[in-house]
Amino acid sequence: MTVNNDRIGEFDVIEDIFSPLSINAPGAFGLTDDAAVMSVASGLEMVITKDAMVAGVHFLENDSPENIAKKLLRTNLSDLAAMGAKPVSYLLATAWPDTCDVAWIRRFANGLSEDQKKYNVSLIGGDTVKTSGPLTLSLTLLGTVETGKSLRRNGAKAGDLVCVSGTIGDAALGLLVALQKLAISDDSEKKFLLGRYFVPDPRVLLGSALTGIASSCIDISDGLLADIGHICRQSNLGAVIERSKIPLSPATQNVILKDPALGERILSGGDDYELAFTVSKERYSEIVRKAKILNINISVIGEMVCETGVSVLDEAGLKISTTSNGWAHF
Amino acid sequence: MTVNNDRIGEFDVIEDIFSPLSINAPGAFGLTDDAAVMSVASGLEMVITKDAMVAGVHFLENDSPENIAKKLLRTNLSDLAAMGAKPVSYLLATAWPDTCDVAWIRRFANGLSEDQKKYNVSLIGGDTVKTSGPLTLSLTLLGTVETGKSLRRNGAKAGDLVCVSGTIGDAALGLLVALQKLAISDDSEKKFLLGRYFVPDPRVLLGSALTGIASSCIDISDGLLADIGHICRQSNLGAVIERSKIPLSPATQNVILKDPALGERILSGGDDYELAFTVSKERYSEIVRKAKILNINISVIGEMVCETGVSVLDEAGLKISTTSNGWAHF
Repeated sequence: MTVNNDRIGEFDVIEDIFSPLSINAPGAFGLTDDAAVMSVASGLEMVITKDAMVAGVHFLENDSPENIAKKLLRTNLSDLAAMGAKPVSYLLATAWPDTCDVAWIRRFANGLSEDQKKYNVSLIGGDTVKTSGPLTLSLTLLGTVETGKSLRRNGAKAGDLVCVSGTIGDAALGLLVALQKLAISDDSEKKFLLGRYFVPDPRVLLGSALTGIASSCIDISDGLLADIGHICRQSNLGAVIERSKIPLSPATQNVILKDPALGERILSGGDDYELAFTVSKERYSEIVRKAKILNINISVIGEMVCETGVSVLDEAGLKISTTSNGWAHF
Repeated sequence: MTVNNDRIGEFDVIEDIFSPLSINAPGAFGLTDDAAVMSVASGLEMVITKDAMVAGVHFLENDSPENIAKKLLRTNLSDLAAMGAKPVSYLLATAWPDTCDVAWIRRFANGLSEDQKKYNVSLIGGDTVKTSGPLTLSLTLLGTVETGKSLRRNGAKAGDLVCVSGTIGDAALGLLVALQKLAISDDSEKKFLLGRYFVPDPRVLLGSALTGIASSCIDISDGLLADIGHICRQSNLGAVIERSKIPLSPATQNVILKDPALGERILSGGDDYELAFTVSKERYSEIVRKAKILNINISVIGEMVCETGVSVLDEAGLKISTTSNGWAHF
């Protein structure tokens, strides 16, 4: 790991702030070498994901450093969860603008530290550079899965149930609240929706539990319909989703009661980082049992079909036309 | 791998341009899933490195896309070489400004494609986002090494020889040529120095050959003295370097004959991506033999000593004071 940031001391940032995040990973060598070393036990495969985030695109410029750090780590944790992998360690590349001083970077590292404990992962390397542009972050997360057991997008079969974890749409509404485009009078509901946007809770344990049972899996980051669309395309199938079965939190239900037009956000909004997955009807009960142990709610929202594309049915069983099923940040 | 670049089509960049770079890596799944899977054979460990590069800091805004791609990959290859690891696959995160159109990105991918063949590595994942700032790139390179055999910075012993591969200082002068701060009349020498800066040749095979023999190793990216300083610090030792023994290319010799003041650049300039390493006197001949097979020149430039710090001696054996031993980009 090298740092090229004269303003805040050439090696201070790594030695003082980031090196302590690597103490539980012997192969990180305290971030003193050119690369990290990681052993992979027999019977396991490595699973690797890498996400990038840019200030003003993937997070708000004035978001707290702790939340930015957590969101960066958690979006990657969610990718590994979607593969059924157990996270182990990560590398971090940061391009700091001058507005990020040492105090800011310390808070950012504190956010990482808190989540390292929560998810049992360690920093093992990376790079720290300066930029004249917005804060730009990239994190590479490494995990393991039993050989051959990783969850894929391409394994769904016609007739499989389409399921999601938790509740859908909260993060999309939370973003509107953060942007002051949506007013919520109830303080606890407001806090809940903001929390779902700023610090999503990736379904790491559920992902692991789904290996060997679910036929396909993805995390909901682009939006419910878009992500189910990815499963459909990779599996050469389609899906029929019943709108009434999409699980909504009480806070989101209240928002939509007041402004039904926001209902579409539930279908298209991203950032929930719940898992969407498919499972045969025969094996569904196994998943319910495992999810119960984890205290995670699972909802069946539709079924995989041979006809390609994703259809949404309203309460009367009629197809709803959806104007947007893609991914859109603010 | 996800792309969020509306301007050039939401998924075209990955499907059309980057997915072909993954065809030789079955665990990349054609870049269609949330993460990649990689097997690690018994007896091997993973070695992982991650570098970031920002336009205007680590490369010139108007550098060719092919060269930017190659430099990004090669600086990471050099990090793995310094650990003695064999490169296998990589993940790429790109934050594109609007100035990088599809034609630019295609040329960038062509550069990667050429180097994938040269170094036998494959793209297995990553992320593609937009930025309002300068082009920002991050690459994570994965490789393998025999378990316990990775080269470290902390293994040097007092009395070990300090060695370097190839020639030193060419890239620092090449950068001056690129910036039009140094005029070279001889066309082939000019081309040579520019090539050493724009497309360094990481010592991947040499790094592998050094495992089990060299006592420490680092790649020269921050500058000869700075990087030997890293070995010294991690090994709790010092080094005495004889200036006359530092290997120089004919082109660099000619530059310094004309302008001796540029001699200091040899000691402080980075970007050569040669290997600096230490080896016991007893085992030096083994390295010479292996390097000969690889057709790589090895030079002994000094010795590790108990007194900490890096000293440079002139032709008369007198200590030279060095005003700069750090890393400085343009």
